[in-house]
Amino acid sequence: MIVVLKKDATIEQRGDLIEWIKSLGLDVHLSEGKFQTVLGLIGDTAGIDTELIEGLSIVEKVTRITEQFKKANRKFHDDDSVFDIGSEKIGDGNFLIIAGPCSVESEEQICDIAGSVKKAGAQMLRGGAFKPRTSPYDFQGMRGEGIELLLKAKKLTGLPIVTEIMDLSHLELFGEVDVIQVGARNMQNMELLKALGKTDKPVLLKRGLSSTVRELLMSAEYIMAGGNERIILCERGIRTFETATRNTLDIAAVPVLKELSHLPVIIDPSHACGIARYVRPLTLAAAAAGADGIIVEVHNNPERALCDGPQSLKPEQFADLVKSVKKVREAIL
Amino acid sequence: MIVVLKKDATIEQRGDLIEWIKSLGLDVHLSEGKFQTVLGLIGDTAGIDTELIEGLSIVEKVTRITEQFKKANRKFHDDDSVFDIGSEKIGDGNFLIIAGPCSVESEEQICDIAGSVKKAGAQMLRGGAFKPRTSPYDFQGMRGEGIELLLKAKKLTGLPIVTEIMDLSHLELFGEVDVIQVGARNMQNMELLKALGKTDKPVLLKRGLSSTVRELLMSAEYIMAGGNERIILCERGIRTFETATRNTLDIAAVPVLKELSHLPVIIDPSHACGIARYVRPLTLAAAAAGADGIIVEVHNNPERALCDGPQSLKPEQFADLVKSVKKVREAIL
Amino acid sequence: MIVVLKKDATIEQRGDLIEWIKSLGLDVHLSEGKFQTVLGLIGDTAGIDTELIEGLSIVEKVTRITEQFKKANRKFHDDDSVFDIGSEKIGDGNFLIIAGPCSVESEEQICDIAGSVKKAGAQMLRGGAFKPRTSPYDFQGMRGEGIELLLKAKKLTGLPIVTEIMDLSHLELFGEVDVIQVGARNMQNMELLKALGKTDKPVLLKRGLSSTVRELLMSAEYIMAGGNERIILCERGIRTFETATRNTLDIAAVPVLKELSHLPVIIDPSHACGIARYVRPLTLAAAAAGADGIIVEVHNNPERALCDGPQSLKPEQFADLVKSVKKVREAIL
Amino acid sequence: MIVVLKKDATIEQRGDLIEWIKSLGLDVHLSEGKFQTVLGLIGDTAGIDTELIEGLSIVEKVTRITEQFKKANRKFHDDDSVFDIGSEKIGDGNFLIIAGPCSVESEEQICDIAGSVKKAGAQMLRGGAFKPRTSPYDFQGMRGEGIELLLKAKKLTGLPIVTEIMDLSHLELFGEVDVIQVGARNMQNMELLKALGKTDKPVLLKRGLSSTVRELLMSAEYIMAGGNERIILCERGIRTFETATRNTLDIAAVPVLKELSHLPVIIDPSHACGIARYVRPLTLAAAAAGADGIIVEVHNNPERALCDGPQSLKPEQFADLVKSVKKVREAIL
Repeated sequence: MIVVLKKDATIEQRGDLIEWIKSLGLDVHLSEGKFQTVLGLIGDTAGIDTELIEGLSIVEKVTRITEQFKKANRKFHDDDSVFDIGSEKIGDGNFLIIAGPCSVESEEQICDIAGSVKKAGAQMLRGGAFKPRTSPYDFQGMRGEGIELLLKAKKLTGLPIVTEIMDLSHLELFGEVDVIQVGARNMQNMELLKALGKTDKPVLLKRGLSSTVRELLMSAEYIMAGGNERIILCERGIRTFETATRNTLDIAAVPVLKELSHLPVIIDPSHACGIARYVRPLTLAAAAAGADGIIVEVHNNPERALCDGPQSLKPEQFADLVKSVKKVREAIL
Repeated sequence: MIVVLKKDATIEQRGDLIEWIKSLGLDVHLSEGKFQTVLGLIGDTAGIDTELIEGLSIVEKVTRITEQFKKANRKFHDDDSVFDIGSEKIGDGNFLIIAGPCSVESEEQICDIAGSVKKAGAQMLRGGAFKPRTSPYDFQGMRGEGIELLLKAKKLTGLPIVTEIMDLSHLELFGEVDVIQVGARNMQNMELLKALGKTDKPVLLKRGLSSTVRELLMSAEYIMAGGNERIILCERGIRTFETATRNTLDIAAVPVLKELSHLPVIIDPSHACGIARYVRPLTLAAAAAGADGIIVEVHNNPERALCDGPQSLKPEQFADLVKSVKKVREAIL
Repeated sequence: MIVVLKKDATIEQRGDLIEWIKSLGLDVHLSEGKFQTVLGLIGDTAGIDTELIEGLSIVEKVTRITEQFKKANRKFHDDDSVFDIGSEKIGDGNFLIIAGPCSVESEEQICDIAGSVKKAGAQMLRGGAFKPRTSPYDFQGMRGEGIELLLKAKKLTGLPIVTEIMDLSHLELFGEVDVIQVGARNMQNMELLKALGKTDKPVLLKRGLSSTVRELLMSAEYIMAGGNERIILCERGIRTFETATRNTLDIAAVPVLKELSHLPVIIDPSHACGIARYVRPLTLAAAAAGADGIIVEVHNNPERALCDGPQSLKPEQFADLVKSVKKVREAIL
Repeated sequence: MIVVLKKDATIEQRGDLIEWIKSLGLDVHLSEGKFQTVLGLIGDTAGIDTELIEGLSIVEKVTRITEQFKKANRKFHDDDSVFDIGSEKIGDGNFLIIAGPCSVESEEQICDIAGSVKKAGAQMLRGGAFKPRTSPYDFQGMRGEGIELLLKAKKLTGLPIVTEIMDLSHLELFGEVDVIQVGARNMQNMELLKALGKTDKPVLLKRGLSSTVRELLMSAEYIMAGGNERIILCERGIRTFETATRNTLDIAAVPVLKELSHLPVIIDPSHACGIARYVRPLTLAAAAAGADGIIVEVHNNPERALCDGPQSLKPEQFADLVKSVKKVREAIL
């Protein structure tokens, strides 16, 4: 950690600061320039609160050199993490295709789609039971009942399931769920993350829509610090000034996350753009950029079919997409 | 609500869509232009899911004309909301000054500061018991014990207290707290918002760091839909590309929120900039822009004083600031 | 264009507004809802100034339904634009690979690199002669002399060249240049765009780092309005809160631009991320997402090789990349 | 400047890098930590290209400690800059009120408004002659003729004038103009900035809508490096995800810029929000935050008055605002 002092800091103040830093178990290297004095803090600085130091009146700037995440850090874990989900694997060259509807709506709906996506090549079923909607007047999901229906679809098809948790009080409903999803709005719900750190289930952790990749890794660290190290990181678009798509897919997050961390990284193209006709190019881009998987919305709702096309892909489009994804994967080897 | 159709939509598809909209209890007005056909949906569209309609393959664009928030909407509630907090009032010309430390650290600390800020003119005490920190290795707050200490400071000074809740499972610890704060990271923790809608305590709702003002009002609506209409909206800086300050204070949010809603609006200049020496100008700007109050960090920690100045204001600087705030308030009348 | 009136607009004011709109040659459709009155403006609204209408005190909101760009609009030009650059083509399935150094530094350097990139599969040479640097103390480019050296490299290799113009007073220096580049900082330098509209040279127009895709198309429209319709659109990363990469590559801009416009769209992965080791995954993602080409920095500077690796790709890495790009192109057909 | 090396950098590579840095006239301090080696570069690093160093394959991160701007830097110029504009002063406690229409439209219009704003307390007249419009089909301004009309208004009222330059080829038209404005879109038009550095006229330099405060200061440095040190910095809103206002006024830029630089800082509330009814609160906030002046749009156009209220303030509202600004200025002393 580098601490730049203000030019009007007295030698006494500087001495007090150095003494205090040393009392925290760190070494300090002092470097005096013409206009600035710089302290280099040497040792394990992960537990040091940079905001506290930045707040000191004699300090101009603090820069962290060592990343604050440890268990998620590739520096201390050279190899890609790889783990089982049902009979499938993710990470270290294993590409995971997750598909399913936005929301679980009925037994017929979820079982139908589960069958279709399995046939098309999906290895895992997604479906929302608890729905975090911006408006209290919008449909809030089937909740516990939705999870029951997902489990029926799992039984029928053998596909493992992933669904989103919205509050830690619902955790007991997730006993049979294969992977627990933490949504973008809850990426920094620290109490929920801590609780998930105590479970033995893989967690699909979505990036908050205004969170940096380093903050995403700190949220993974919250779960891992509790003992649960099976985390799938998911980039799903960030909020920017551009309004042509709902969010902006940060495709560079794939190589950046894979460099900083050993955890698998997947892409959610459906939420990233919010428009079905852009899902295909974004999914192919994800595969080309080296992602470890995708999670795609696929729908098959006859009531909505009246206008010939809901927001998510139809099963036949998804089947085509899976074929192309496989070809792109081969092309980049 | 305006729905623009694609130019290749057939008359049959269009008819199906119109029929479906009418089945939702709305009237439809059809307008055919040279290049586009536009449907105007007339009636109560607050419960209509725009994403569902946007997803239809014959739809190019959907624009909501009527705001989706109702209880928070000034259109249906002309007068400013005003309500009591202890013996103080907020809203409709009543300016509320809230001050206190970032975190509660000890009985001595919180009682000392409470005394200082009361003397300086604060009408309410703030202090963090549960702390949502980015890193699991940073101090997480004194939690339940911190609330106990805040209550001691309240007893001593008579100041009502506000402190942040991080999970709805902690709600019972907040029985004696005067105002419950929802932090920026939890602005869209919908389960928590719903639970707060069932309490009878005022809620200080902070804007998420990448939330629009309309999303902030939708989160207020979540609480109000449950029956609790005493919400204080708080602008505390949004995330932008600028890194000279921790966040960017959106000062225009004050007039915008006050135009869209009848709820009181306060500013948190400390979190908006993250640097003590900018708190004074931002606080004065908030008062000048017509805010209904401020919430400011004030610190008085002798251990940290060794380097002569923590991040938050010292009591004597805060006392000066309160005097200037009052003068600015008079100047803009 | 949809104009939503404020609820307190009088019938007289409304009548005046409608009359004025009709005087501009448009029809008006009036729709009265319970809480809002909405005017639909029918006819050619591209020349209507929305800001002027938004500023009227009786107006709440204005939404443009028809895009303001015409010559760049796919609605009026169904087929992909395709045009020649030297003996190469771009657009409508023709993929263009442009490569070269950030700056032209010497005859030896540019001729060496030109030879290497041609051998590796590049169809066009890039190189900066005029350099828009943030600091006046940084190297500003070889300027006119740099263009001379590019022309030597062109003569030697037969590769057409593209280089950036920074001011319209330099236009005469670009007589032998094949494609003129407008950089991100100049995307809204309207006087320059107008001047380029009067030339007969293809223009490579880079997206401003905080410009929407629609603004990019409006800048293309400036050039096309002058008569020059050979524009290559270039996405090169936008500015967001994320700092792990210099900019955030908006990969979805590829399908969005190709839907809105018939113009070819290329990607600049080098400027999008600013870090050589991410150029490969981003380039492959661009090809997978359906871009019409790429423009990549390739360097070969022995002086800088002392530390074994400048920011841009080395020729051998670029040659590998070109092979993979071709495979990805085949995979997505 | 701090250079963090990658952990796999060899001692030889490191030695080569250190030697090269020393050849640039700098000293190097080497600090070896457990996981990282850090080089501290000591000396005048303003001319060092950080991108070049970041691009080296053995470098992980580069952090600039000393700001790159020198002439604009308060560190080398403790006192506030103050300079004359006509018979007025700006800076060091002198507050400058600039007002006028968005565009010059006719002699009658500009002379009328000039008279009104002078009477209301304005000390300088603004008005657009060259207009940078997003669409080529929107009104582009009266150009040279507009400047003629501004000069007539100046003669009539004695108010000095400021108007925007869009291209350096127009510079000769600005001979009688008192202050030349560089608009947000041209903040990084480096050729224009260099040309203005050679003139003897004060420059009003607007912040680009996605430029950091440090980039604004680098653009000021471009002008100052040429010899012209009379720059007025202008914050006019930045582009963020929020759409309730056209841009987001970064009010904290006032104290930040005044801390980093000695140059005067003014606020343009009209362009920051784009909505006339928010101009008053934002202007008062600017005064309270310590700005050195404001530039406000005031309009008086009878043709547009038919709907009772154009976007900019009417003269009588402006007169009221000036009174309140003066009271706020007194309140914060």
